[in-house]
Amino acid sequence: MSTFVLVHGAWHEGSAWNKVIKQLEAKGHQAFAPTIAGHGKGVNKNVNHAQCTQSIVDYIVSKDLTDIVLLGHSFGGTIIAKVAEAVSDRIKRLIFFNAFVLNDGDRLTDNIPPDSQALFDKLARESDDNTMMLPSEVWREAFINDADLDLARSSYAQLSPEPYQPFLDKLDLKQFYSLPIAKSYLYCTEDNVLPQGEQWGWHPRMSNRLGLFRLVQMLGSHEVMFSNPIGLAEKIIVAGRE
Amino acid sequence: MSTFVLVHGAWHEGSAWNKVIKQLEAKGHQAFAPTIAGHGKGVNKNVNHAQCTQSIVDYIVSKDLTDIVLLGHSFGGTIIAKVAEAVSDRIKRLIFFNAFVLNDGDRLTDNIPPDSQALFDKLARESDDNTMMLPSEVWREAFINDADLDLARSSYAQLSPEPYQPFLDKLDLKQFYSLPIAKSYLYCTEDNVLPQGEQWGWHPRMSNRLGLFRLVQMLGSHEVMFSNPIGLAEKIIVAGRE
Amino acid sequence: MSTFVLVHGAWHEGSAWNKVIKQLEAKGHQAFAPTIAGHGKGVNKNVNHAQCTQSIVDYIVSKDLTDIVLLGHSFGGTIIAKVAEAVSDRIKRLIFFNAFVLNDGDRLTDNIPPDSQALFDKLARESDDNTMMLPSEVWREAFINDADLDLARSSYAQLSPEPYQPFLDKLDLKQFYSLPIAKSYLYCTEDNVLPQGEQWGWHPRMSNRLGLFRLVQMLGSHEVMFSNPIGLAEKIIVAGRE
Repeated sequence: MSTFVLVHGAWHEGSAWNKVIKQLEAKGHQAFAPTIAGHGKGVNKNVNHAQCTQSIVDYIVSKDLTDIVLLGHSFGGTIIAKVAEAVSDRIKRLIFFNAFVLNDGDRLTDNIPPDSQALFDKLARESDDNTMMLPSEVWREAFINDADLDLARSSYAQLSPEPYQPFLDKLDLKQFYSLPIAKSYLYCTEDNVLPQGEQWGWHPRMSNRLGLFRLVQMLGSHEVMFSNPIGLAEKIIVAGRE
Repeated sequence: MSTFVLVHGAWHEGSAWNKVIKQLEAKGHQAFAPTIAGHGKGVNKNVNHAQCTQSIVDYIVSKDLTDIVLLGHSFGGTIIAKVAEAVSDRIKRLIFFNAFVLNDGDRLTDNIPPDSQALFDKLARESDDNTMMLPSEVWREAFINDADLDLARSSYAQLSPEPYQPFLDKLDLKQFYSLPIAKSYLYCTEDNVLPQGEQWGWHPRMSNRLGLFRLVQMLGSHEVMFSNPIGLAEKIIVAGRE
Repeated sequence: MSTFVLVHGAWHEGSAWNKVIKQLEAKGHQAFAPTIAGHGKGVNKNVNHAQCTQSIVDYIVSKDLTDIVLLGHSFGGTIIAKVAEAVSDRIKRLIFFNAFVLNDGDRLTDNIPPDSQALFDKLARESDDNTMMLPSEVWREAFINDADLDLARSSYAQLSPEPYQPFLDKLDLKQFYSLPIAKSYLYCTEDNVLPQGEQWGWHPRMSNRLGLFRLVQMLGSHEVMFSNPIGLAEKIIVAGRE
């Protein structure tokens, strides 16, 4: 049985994994879903990427978790790469789940199309705290395209504004790329948050940066933790097993 | 419940949708499948793209259809883009189903590989009425690869020669690209009518031209209205819902 | 009912198909799975590509097989292309199953990424008989990513060192590319043996070289003859039917 630590993406918080965790536990696993610093409702959003990373490191150390299968979703992929550098001896495998795998020296925004960059710039500039709130029509059409309207709305209500600074910080990933930790890429094939294809898509553009990795695919959108949590849990187990 | 208007592709006529319509109706929706001018058996094939478009506009207006989910299959994608310009206030959403999404100023033949262009040129030149009949082995191997031989044959018998002029007309699509109508792209993943991949494939090459759109995928060939009409109807509902 | 000849890939031998053959026979077909010269355990590994090809030609001729659906998996794709040149009149259809389709004049190693080339060079150099044994972690992560650990181990135990010379021989395929034999490409969508994508992936990079071909896809890894033999048999029947 495995110990999973699930790191959410932008706009989300740890509770997004509730149904997935329930299923993982029903299958005999342990699973934890910390909320990244600066994320969630009603918290101070003034964080940078290093502070986001440190909050997950602190969570793992404070609970003294070991032999972890550490999963990062979307933006969470940039977090788990840096967490892996900090506590590599506690981690058995990394799972990048429709997640950013940045090249050494990249910032997240280097890896998204110009129109998304322009949208995020505008949203952050128009906010009073350098955050971006995802437009609801983008959520419905591009993020959770496999949900019905009720689920699209109820899941949107769980989102909160995303601090912009962590998207802009350049990440030193030289150590990450030398770690001998096993890696999986879990890819939902209807994810259209990044335009599919060679230029901007999640897979194989991001995934192939991992070198040797285990590919696991499933049907569904970027947001299967809401639209198919049981199916997602099954694939997380396959991605995480020995 | 939605009002679907289903626009067929080249070589087909409206009756290709019969089984899909039956299933949509069984689920409580309305569905219509007009035959494009110059298409079907025993009709005058001397039409251009504007006349094809006008025939669908006339159909929609004569029936006074509103709040339409307008779907175009294959060549039909070029038709619904121009129909949307003409009667945008009647349309709630566009669904491009393994369909051409042309760039402004393109003609359809700009978007197919040189060997297909050469084949179509030759077929039209050798006809006595500037039409192309699809070779049966291309139908069997590339169009309806998921059917057994009986279905491949019976569906081929429903085809008729395609007027070539609409493939050659350059389309002004500036207005289309400024319409605020919601859009979906429904993609069958075994479609090999266009060579899969970045250079010539349906998706993501065509789909990404739509900007923000809802991606819906299903297994199957270019011709699932014959090989899997019930599954197709389910996906059309998902692509068309709010 | 069809007569299938199944040609295995590198590191494998004919017995890899045992469960697939059982299922094909249960569906009323005949199926044969010869072991390529220089392959399998405890045999002389000093073979070149022409000798590999000849061993399959000899097998077909000695059994006087006709109307064959000839399938090649992985490296086996390079074999069936040359077998088809030699005994084209005995072959009804070719199925390339996550297989190499080489361009005329290519050698297999021209079609794999530089890091794989370097690995194979090193393995062959370090052997005492110019063979490569696949590292077990590459097998588990990249080849049989859809298996549990027990199956990954038991299937690995069936492998044997692969002679390197057939990977290095340049193949004259001019005749192959003029053969009028029908062709299918059967593609397992979780195959990560070659990095997915335009530059190095199996499909559509290899498959599109076939010209007109029938595309059949299924879920699974490079090694579904072990991880899903019944599903594979069903897809082989679809790929091979008229």
